[in-house]
Amino acid sequence: MDVLVPFSPARPKTRLSGTFSPEERVSFAREMLADTLATVRKAGHEPRVLATESIDCAAPVTVDERALTPAVNDAITEATPVAVVVADLPLATSAAVERLFESSADIAVAPGRGGGTNALVIRRPEFRVDYHGASFRDHVAIAESIEADVTVVDSHRLATDIDERADLAELLLHGSGTAHDWLVDRGFQVSVTDGRVGIERSAASRG
Amino acid sequence: MDVLVPFSPARPKTRLSGTFSPEERVSFAREMLADTLATVRKAGHEPRVLATESIDCAAPVTVDERALTPAVNDAITEATPVAVVVADLPLATSAAVERLFESSADIAVAPGRGGGTNALVIRRPEFRVDYHGASFRDHVAIAESIEADVTVVDSHRLATDIDERADLAELLLHGSGTAHDWLVDRGFQVSVTDGRVGIERSAASRG
Repeated sequence: MDVLVPFSPARPKTRLSGTFSPEERVSFAREMLADTLATVRKAGHEPRVLATESIDCAAPVTVDERALTPAVNDAITEATPVAVVVADLPLATSAAVERLFESSADIAVAPGRGGGTNALVIRRPEFRVDYHGASFRDHVAIAESIEADVTVVDSHRLATDIDERADLAELLLHGSGTAHDWLVDRGFQVSVTDGRVGIERSAASRG
Repeated sequence: MDVLVPFSPARPKTRLSGTFSPEERVSFAREMLADTLATVRKAGHEPRVLATESIDCAAPVTVDERALTPAVNDAITEATPVAVVVADLPLATSAAVERLFESSADIAVAPGRGGGTNALVIRRPEFRVDYHGASFRDHVAIAESIEADVTVVDSHRLATDIDERADLAELLLHGSGTAHDWLVDRGFQVSVTDGRVGIERSAASRG
């Protein structure tokens, strides 16, 4: 099965602007991509990166300058089954990915926290994606509209795409890959203030 | 196995003060408790509420005025195995709870988003809980200190305790129980602004 990992190298992770420098955001996005690719491979599949421009990474890259939705929809038209796994899942484990990939449902979906779709397995060529807005809900509706059966995979690790500062606490608490280590190497650690968990960075390590 | 559901009726869900009236917070906490109890029961277990004061609910209630940590530690001393499931898990399903309960590990734990511990199964009488701060990490360390083996259950539904406004979007998107319906009945719905998912309330329904 073709496993697509969409990646947009330009100006990544803007919601982490208050936490990282622009250069750090680029590095961090690459580390997360590397983790995601390694996890897909460990789950027994060969990932292919679907990038908006040419990049150097540990997988074959297909360049498609268009937005995510039309690029993925063309890939579905070309071949099914096909899987789509977002590139910012450094907490994903091969066990979690296997739970998704082993489903025989027409559409297997791992929701992201905040209404997104972090991973999809598509076994029906007439299915179409729509990544705008609350895409999880839309993907379930699209599946129903073509009478496809849907399995939803219940995984905190697949639900936790890393977009904002609070997500970094999850990565520090539960991660073990290169993005986790990158974060630790740059002085980030979990902090607890008034019983609430956050992150802090040692002053000496600010980039 | 004894399944404890700790519940503190006084001033619940303070982090939802900007979203609900005080009376609504009390009601909402009760609906979440009802969902959590129903899910434990559907998973084949009889829950027992461990409450800081007497309450009327659909399960036996043990009143213990102390803080959560000493109250649960006494329960562990009294009998193992014992499970502890927090009362604000309206997204939990019996399938997710069963994954936790079926583990034969000495300690099975479902982390909450933000470093907490949303559910525990304890099969070692010398284990002790410590719910303060980043308790997931502490519980793993305590387990290691007594050479207990630990299973971590990877579930978005068990990780999503409902504490703050962003959590309500998860409940609206993925819920189906009484707390979900309570929220819908009061005019709450998912909103999408600039591609980000949030919640909004119809003006007519404000409490």
